[in-house]
Amino acid sequence: MTTDSTNVTRRQGSDTKTEILDVALSLFVTKGYHPTSMQDIAEAAGLTKGGLYYYLKSKDEVLYLLHDRFIMEGLSWLRKVEEEVNDPEKKLVKLLKTHLAIIDQYKDDITLFFEAMKYLSQEKRQEVKSKRDDYEKIFIKAIEEGRNQGVFSIASSEIAVLYILGAGNFMYTWYKPEGKKTIEELADIFIGMIMNGLVK
Amino acid sequence: MTTDSTNVTRRQGSDTKTEILDVALSLFVTKGYHPTSMQDIAEAAGLTKGGLYYYLKSKDEVLYLLHDRFIMEGLSWLRKVEEEVNDPEKKLVKLLKTHLAIIDQYKDDITLFFEAMKYLSQEKRQEVKSKRDDYEKIFIKAIEEGRNQGVFSIASSEIAVLYILGAGNFMYTWYKPEGKKTIEELADIFIGMIMNGLVK
Repeated sequence: MTTDSTNVTRRQGSDTKTEILDVALSLFVTKGYHPTSMQDIAEAAGLTKGGLYYYLKSKDEVLYLLHDRFIMEGLSWLRKVEEEVNDPEKKLVKLLKTHLAIIDQYKDDITLFFEAMKYLSQEKRQEVKSKRDDYEKIFIKAIEEGRNQGVFSIASSEIAVLYILGAGNFMYTWYKPEGKKTIEELADIFIGMIMNGLVK
Repeated sequence: MTTDSTNVTRRQGSDTKTEILDVALSLFVTKGYHPTSMQDIAEAAGLTKGGLYYYLKSKDEVLYLLHDRFIMEGLSWLRKVEEEVNDPEKKLVKLLKTHLAIIDQYKDDITLFFEAMKYLSQEKRQEVKSKRDDYEKIFIKAIEEGRNQGVFSIASSEIAVLYILGAGNFMYTWYKPEGKKTIEELADIFIGMIMNGLVK
């Protein structure tokens, strides 16, 4: 089980604002960002429109908070791994497992992240991208450490990480939690390929 | 250069309908699918709304034709490789190069494909997905051939292909044709990792 090996679990809404954000996330992912109105969000959350505006002042704000919440939680899961594991190969494996577990646990969040980030204002998008860069840098650092110790061989850690994370990220288009393979089995195939490649 | 090694070049619009589709594609990718109206497409194409409807009867049709055109052209590039190369390892390398060259040449098409496929009708979406499956199967077949010949080792060719294509596909979020590395240099890093992995 994912939770046994990585402990990644999506945080549960414990207050009204978090619950509204979860409702909005679900609407944005199923209906699309533009077709969803604040009225739709209010109705789905069981609030009047005035009640909704008490918590969140615009659809832009909702979109931004969803992006920020997701990337901040993702970063905190990775940082735990960074602190726990020293050996670069083991660290990279655990980071990759954690990345897939995040995709498993935050499927809607990640879908929105990749499909609707462009609808953020320039300023907010830069803020989110800067945190996404921090997420990537954790992987780059682990690979660099492995290179320095002579364990890994790769022409560019930065480019490798873009491909590696992309392979995982793209799961949001095909991965089904109820599918034939568990996220752990999928992670084993993924990690085997990234670490050792296809060629015997 | 990409074109030297794979010959992949995006076909140029040679008739009004193709030109309209290209204009619509650009609007959908920059403004989003929902915010773009048939009126916007007509204006950008230098047509009256009546003129536009002579060629294309709805925004749904435009969206479908863009998806279909892209996947059919992608398939035709891969099928050329299948016919040209026999050795499974060389074939997979050429298929991967071709996949990246397609991403390079069809950046907007692929962005729309991944972000707006869900706005197709159920029936049209199934049609497009079935062709996308054919695209994946070409890679699966090459890996299976390599497994049968004892060249490749992987627990599941199907899952491996989802990761491999995902790594490439995700380039649409970060790849810039004017960036520091050429698509050929990026392809070398990608292929090296897929074939041999990170571990020395």
